[in-house]
Amino acid sequence: MLKKIKRILIANRGEIAVRAIRSIKELGGESIAVYSEGDKDCIHKDLADISVCIGPANATKSYLNIPALLSAIDLTHADAVYPGYGFLAENPTFAAICERSNIKFIGPSSETIKLTGDKAQAREAAKKAGVPIIPGSPPVEELKEALEISSEIGYPVLIKAAAGGGGRGMRVAHNEQELARLLPLAQREAESSFGDRRVYIEKFIENPKHIEIQILADEFGNVIHLGERECSVQRRHQKLIEESPSPFIDEKIRREMGEAAVKFAKAVNFTGAGTVEFIVDKNKNFYFIEMNGRIQVEHPVTEMVTGVDIVSWQLKIADGQKLTIKQEEIKPNGHAIEFRINAEDPISFVPQPGKIEKLYLPGGYGVRVDTHIYQGYTIPPYYDSLMAKLIVWGKTREEAIERGKRALKEFIIEGLKTTIPFHLKMLEHPEFIKGTYTTSLVDKEFLGIKV
Amino acid sequence: MLKKIKRILIANRGEIAVRAIRSIKELGGESIAVYSEGDKDCIHKDLADISVCIGPANATKSYLNIPALLSAIDLTHADAVYPGYGFLAENPTFAAICERSNIKFIGPSSETIKLTGDKAQAREAAKKAGVPIIPGSPPVEELKEALEISSEIGYPVLIKAAAGGGGRGMRVAHNEQELARLLPLAQREAESSFGDRRVYIEKFIENPKHIEIQILADEFGNVIHLGERECSVQRRHQKLIEESPSPFIDEKIRREMGEAAVKFAKAVNFTGAGTVEFIVDKNKNFYFIEMNGRIQVEHPVTEMVTGVDIVSWQLKIADGQKLTIKQEEIKPNGHAIEFRINAEDPISFVPQPGKIEKLYLPGGYGVRVDTHIYQGYTIPPYYDSLMAKLIVWGKTREEAIERGKRALKEFIIEGLKTTIPFHLKMLEHPEFIKGTYTTSLVDKEFLGIKV
Repeated sequence: MLKKIKRILIANRGEIAVRAIRSIKELGGESIAVYSEGDKDCIHKDLADISVCIGPANATKSYLNIPALLSAIDLTHADAVYPGYGFLAENPTFAAICERSNIKFIGPSSETIKLTGDKAQAREAAKKAGVPIIPGSPPVEELKEALEISSEIGYPVLIKAAAGGGGRGMRVAHNEQELARLLPLAQREAESSFGDRRVYIEKFIENPKHIEIQILADEFGNVIHLGERECSVQRRHQKLIEESPSPFIDEKIRREMGEAAVKFAKAVNFTGAGTVEFIVDKNKNFYFIEMNGRIQVEHPVTEMVTGVDIVSWQLKIADGQKLTIKQEEIKPNGHAIEFRINAEDPISFVPQPGKIEKLYLPGGYGVRVDTHIYQGYTIPPYYDSLMAKLIVWGKTREEAIERGKRALKEFIIEGLKTTIPFHLKMLEHPEFIKGTYTTSLVDKEFLGIKV
Repeated sequence: MLKKIKRILIANRGEIAVRAIRSIKELGGESIAVYSEGDKDCIHKDLADISVCIGPANATKSYLNIPALLSAIDLTHADAVYPGYGFLAENPTFAAICERSNIKFIGPSSETIKLTGDKAQAREAAKKAGVPIIPGSPPVEELKEALEISSEIGYPVLIKAAAGGGGRGMRVAHNEQELARLLPLAQREAESSFGDRRVYIEKFIENPKHIEIQILADEFGNVIHLGERECSVQRRHQKLIEESPSPFIDEKIRREMGEAAVKFAKAVNFTGAGTVEFIVDKNKNFYFIEMNGRIQVEHPVTEMVTGVDIVSWQLKIADGQKLTIKQEEIKPNGHAIEFRINAEDPISFVPQPGKIEKLYLPGGYGVRVDTHIYQGYTIPPYYDSLMAKLIVWGKTREEAIERGKRALKEFIIEGLKTTIPFHLKMLEHPEFIKGTYTTSLVDKEFLGIKV
């Protein structure tokens, strides 16, 4: 139960707003939804105790509009803000304003957000903490610098926006000519995407695994990890399927990655729930890439195998409660897989907003669905296309895969296209079944794109 | 995966047919649905691989119509039948016909069904096996006999139909005069309900708990139990809420009841999944009442705390597979509660068939919904009023209760009345919260009926 924070405004929409409302209610808090004019029919508005319209459909005028959110906080006497993912979840300015206004921002401090949000600084912090990082440079400005560093670490190299995320501003250069051509492109893209043209250069790990460690940290210095999530099924850096445990890493690497993640979280004074992301090469070497100081879309797979309610812990930690789970108590049980059911064409992944004419959701043993959709609901075109998360659990990975197939086939969604056929195809793919797949699988095998 | 049985006809409808289809698919089998003319829009028909209409809406002409079912089996080349609960699930004639026709009946043998279905015989078997039974008589015919027995065991006594179930043909007599008046009534009701006028007399345990033990038994003599379910929230012997573990019994009684249940199952050569039912008095003495040799509506609570998929095991056992779970591996984790969401008035419990105009089902962490309903579906008036089973899990009973409240409030069902308000009221009742409630709680506190 919550003791200090009582009225929590959720600065988000859709499924993650619904997820937050659920935990807030279970902990005896009051939930306050905000919604844009484009979200009048979104169910998070109806499930919350109170709801407030914060502006037009365009997110810059509503969910990203800090003054509008502050007005809503004021109006509803909220004493805390749950940011979810995306929108303002990792915006240090918003977190800092909340801190100054004595509104509890449910996440790490604005200082930590700033630090982890700057890839170069985060890299530096990892290096200092003894967490393995990919050989690379501090931010570079000039081509000359970039060429020197690249010849030192060896091609291929990756050019990456210092302030970036989600693959924007990223380029791979296989030689000097490519580097010379791509550097200004990456800088321009970084500038336009993040308002910050700084990029850095690092060793490009070919065909890596993308594996992340879930962290929980309270305000008393207690930090634990909840094991890993394998997130290598990605299309252009957008995750599509996540599972835990990873079928690739062994007990030793798992422990080492967990310990490295905890070390990093401690080094940046992290509090709340966050994820330390690694890439893992084919020899099982792992390298820190970044820390996301927010709830992840894929957090339920960890909840299913550990029995730890991550969102509830976010709230309890923000409420000033001590983490009562010890690291040695975390013993993953079975296997969980999450499928992102997006309103997208399953081949081109082009968004398909539209009305859900008929709906039947899968259920039963080992099946969890996190969603805000209902029959008659129209997916608005303004936001991301995530409609539902299907999470399946099984005693073994094989059982989870069979349950996944069954549950995916059980969905009845009429009126628009979804990624369900993609997922069904993936579950039959030999590399997925073996668990050896890397981040290039989707682009290589499903889109016919050479990477 | 299934090896011998491949094409399974589900001789049932609604949520339990959906439940069976799920496990059949996960185990690589083919599912065959049957449906009545009143169930043309029931989703079990659409989720199965094949579906066959077996007759008019009236169950006696469809789901209870053995020749129609045999024709459907023949037509679809089914090699096994999944009976579910109710209808023909415990009909020894149907099981015997399947046995003779070389169709695997997914349940115990017709001999065992016959034995456990006859309360007097079952009582005898329990007595022989050393399982505690309620002091009482073999079936009685004459009032003189009944009076003798009753004075021996002491009033109040319960008059019970030998072939009965579900509370029909039951009467409580507090003295000789009442016995003389009620015996012929009970006999007539037994005759009209079960075609068998035999009744027996037993000691009436006032305000008991109703607690059952889940059994799994393979065809090689391996029998385990999966702990207990507390089923004392009943209205006129119809269960409304079930939970596991029981908040009332301790480790010692739990072990003793489990051992007694296994002993009984072995004594009657039980195979498959079944439930040994006990009543438990206020001093924690437990008495065998009956064994149900079928899946129970409330099986999911056990699945949630043990991680054992009971329906899958029913199928694997019928497939001739060995039980690979050892008794010592069953370690219940956390607490689960099931709420039966019925299309009934929440005060009078009068069925409310009708159309579901709007639907949003609860979901998220620790929530399972087993249902066949969807928006636009019309609950037909011909069958039982169970619309959905909401099962919640928590690390502790308190957490499960809070999650239950949250999930019950999250349901949006427009167009008809449901038992949701009843459940919400129950979760606030001090006796429910304490866990000391008995089978008389609903009648006493919620209906104002003296029992």
